[in-house]
Amino acid sequence: MISVEEAQIRILAGLKPIDTELEDLVHLTDRVAAEDIRALGDNPPAPIATVNGYALRRSDGDAPRKVAGKATPGHPFQGTVGTNEAVRIVIGGVIPEGADAIAFAEDANDAGGDLRFDPADIQPDYIRGAGLDFKSGSVLVPAGKRITARDMSLLAAGGVAQAKVRRRPRVAIVSVGDELSAPGEPRPHGSIYASTGYGLSAMIATWGGAPCDFGILEDSAQEIATIADADAELVVTLGGHSVGNADLVAKALGTSDFRMDSWNVAYRPGRPLLYGRLGDTPVLGLPGNPASALVCSILFIRPSIDIMLGTAQSLCSLPQRFKCGCHTMTARLRSALPATDARQTYVRARLIMQGGEMWAEPYPVLDYPMLSVLAKADALVVLPPHAAPSQTGDRVEFIPLDGY
Amino acid sequence: MISVEEAQIRILAGLKPIDTELEDLVHLTDRVAAEDIRALGDNPPAPIATVNGYALRRSDGDAPRKVAGKATPGHPFQGTVGTNEAVRIVIGGVIPEGADAIAFAEDANDAGGDLRFDPADIQPDYIRGAGLDFKSGSVLVPAGKRITARDMSLLAAGGVAQAKVRRRPRVAIVSVGDELSAPGEPRPHGSIYASTGYGLSAMIATWGGAPCDFGILEDSAQEIATIADADAELVVTLGGHSVGNADLVAKALGTSDFRMDSWNVAYRPGRPLLYGRLGDTPVLGLPGNPASALVCSILFIRPSIDIMLGTAQSLCSLPQRFKCGCHTMTARLRSALPATDARQTYVRARLIMQGGEMWAEPYPVLDYPMLSVLAKADALVVLPPHAAPSQTGDRVEFIPLDGY
Repeated sequence: MISVEEAQIRILAGLKPIDTELEDLVHLTDRVAAEDIRALGDNPPAPIATVNGYALRRSDGDAPRKVAGKATPGHPFQGTVGTNEAVRIVIGGVIPEGADAIAFAEDANDAGGDLRFDPADIQPDYIRGAGLDFKSGSVLVPAGKRITARDMSLLAAGGVAQAKVRRRPRVAIVSVGDELSAPGEPRPHGSIYASTGYGLSAMIATWGGAPCDFGILEDSAQEIATIADADAELVVTLGGHSVGNADLVAKALGTSDFRMDSWNVAYRPGRPLLYGRLGDTPVLGLPGNPASALVCSILFIRPSIDIMLGTAQSLCSLPQRFKCGCHTMTARLRSALPATDARQTYVRARLIMQGGEMWAEPYPVLDYPMLSVLAKADALVVLPPHAAPSQTGDRVEFIPLDGY
Repeated sequence: MISVEEAQIRILAGLKPIDTELEDLVHLTDRVAAEDIRALGDNPPAPIATVNGYALRRSDGDAPRKVAGKATPGHPFQGTVGTNEAVRIVIGGVIPEGADAIAFAEDANDAGGDLRFDPADIQPDYIRGAGLDFKSGSVLVPAGKRITARDMSLLAAGGVAQAKVRRRPRVAIVSVGDELSAPGEPRPHGSIYASTGYGLSAMIATWGGAPCDFGILEDSAQEIATIADADAELVVTLGGHSVGNADLVAKALGTSDFRMDSWNVAYRPGRPLLYGRLGDTPVLGLPGNPASALVCSILFIRPSIDIMLGTAQSLCSLPQRFKCGCHTMTARLRSALPATDARQTYVRARLIMQGGEMWAEPYPVLDYPMLSVLAKADALVVLPPHAAPSQTGDRVEFIPLDGY
């Protein structure tokens, strides 16, 4: 038996960041920056007024000011504010050349058509300096960061119309089994509906990959051999090796340089994991049971996609890291859990907020193959190998299931 | 001044769940079920073996059994297991008619070509009964639930090929201002790049709406009047009312039955919120400042979309509710925050896990207009009106910013 961590290390060792593509701004959300994305200009590009009032020169003191013009957003004052001059300015208007302060209109005293201000009412604080938010050339989104909605506005404010991101890694999914029917099709006696591919495709899209579901293949070497043509960075087979013929997939894909290993991973739920390489492309064989296969996917495919995307976890926000399952959270147990054996155990649980704390209510451990239980769960509580029994109230680690 | 809650109540009162559409299974992820989605068959559809072995009759005791055939996934044994018969069975194979237990192959003793088992080795436990996961007709996804990736597999297993979901509410976005240029276009002196729409569109898509960005309109009643033709359930205007002419949008859209109210909402950051109705369509006017507008969007547009989708929050998982901002979490403050005035204050903060606890490191409150700070933040710490100063270590509520 090998540990979950060892299986992850072996799988990830065969992967590297894939090629990049230039994308238009509107398509950048959730993509991973392939290089530092820098501002093309200062923000704000010029000093602007944060209040309505008059832009003027502090050094003129209490001298009467002649109103020389006005500045509104998009319509800057074209000249320079000279000695004893003022320019009417509106929030967001550019501070005109020569001005270094703003006074409120309501503080103005009439001085024969001109305006006079008490120097105490003239403040430089209402000017937002050029580049206060960011300077031209500064990094708005560093390489490896997954671009959020807020980053989208930041990039736009920096004038970025296109950026280089990692291509979405293509993940080919093949469901193998004579017993499988497609939902919507007739289901003969002895047949079940193929279901893992639908959930796995949705997960892969959430993780930033491009799922490509090849549908259902029969348990025959000839059918399975068609996988070899999949134009993908990762091939995932579902089932097909629980048929008693554990190496059907391996045989089907077998060439002189192809080997499919069967790993006995120390975790629950889960059956042997198949791993091989078709040329440079890793092939991962997951269990046929949908609930087990989806948990395996979170453990092994999610980090694989992150490696191919070149995601720098340290640059992602904590909620993003929770979302992608690469950072566990802690909760308190609402009921006791038995000791574990040599296998790391992932217990499905429902999260509850109570008294400002997060609690995890585990579902019975025996419900592994139940998709209905996995769908109801919020979280996978992680119990390490050889753990003592857990008591109600104990703090445990969990992987949030979120949008999975 | 009205409270944030009062503004939310007024906006949501004008909204209701929109019409539904039938969608194919592969497009159901993240959609909201418009009615209970029920299983079209049992899962498993027939009792199946959870181990490899022989299916047989317990009542035959230790009598030698004749092997009558085999059952593999997709290839059920066609007959009935009679007295003193056994059928070779493989994991996932259907338990043949007549059999009620399984024995392992390694426990078989040869009896002149037949097989004899010790009755103690014959167990009914390795049969997963028909409908153990769910029964035909049971509710797989209740009305109002947002469909997760795991639900996708559950629906497929229930044979669901199509389901009725809420249409994505269309949200029209118009950016108003003579000072705005589009990223990628030349930016004249006094102009800034329009940026809010890019982030807001991404947020709306995450929340389940269909954003439709109308781009940049000039500060003219004639231009703004084109909004009236937007085919949308909600119209959002950005800026255009900080130009000194606070009711430009209102005027542009003014018909005999149109009124645009300006609400002074007790929150920070934020400026007056405009609210009106074009026929049945609510029009929401957000501040021109991108960072303020995005925070306003989380407070007012996110719940609007949920109402239109008919989302039943109680049916969503806790991580989903965190994600959509409708459930706050708590963290401890890493540094002190000043008392608040009459305004509810949303302080941008970075989340950190330390010692198994979540901590929030607030950014300086003065940094409101900074998009760069909003982009770096993970969370909005919520300080209620008239709150005393908060100390380092205090527990505070926050809205996670997640994939926003």
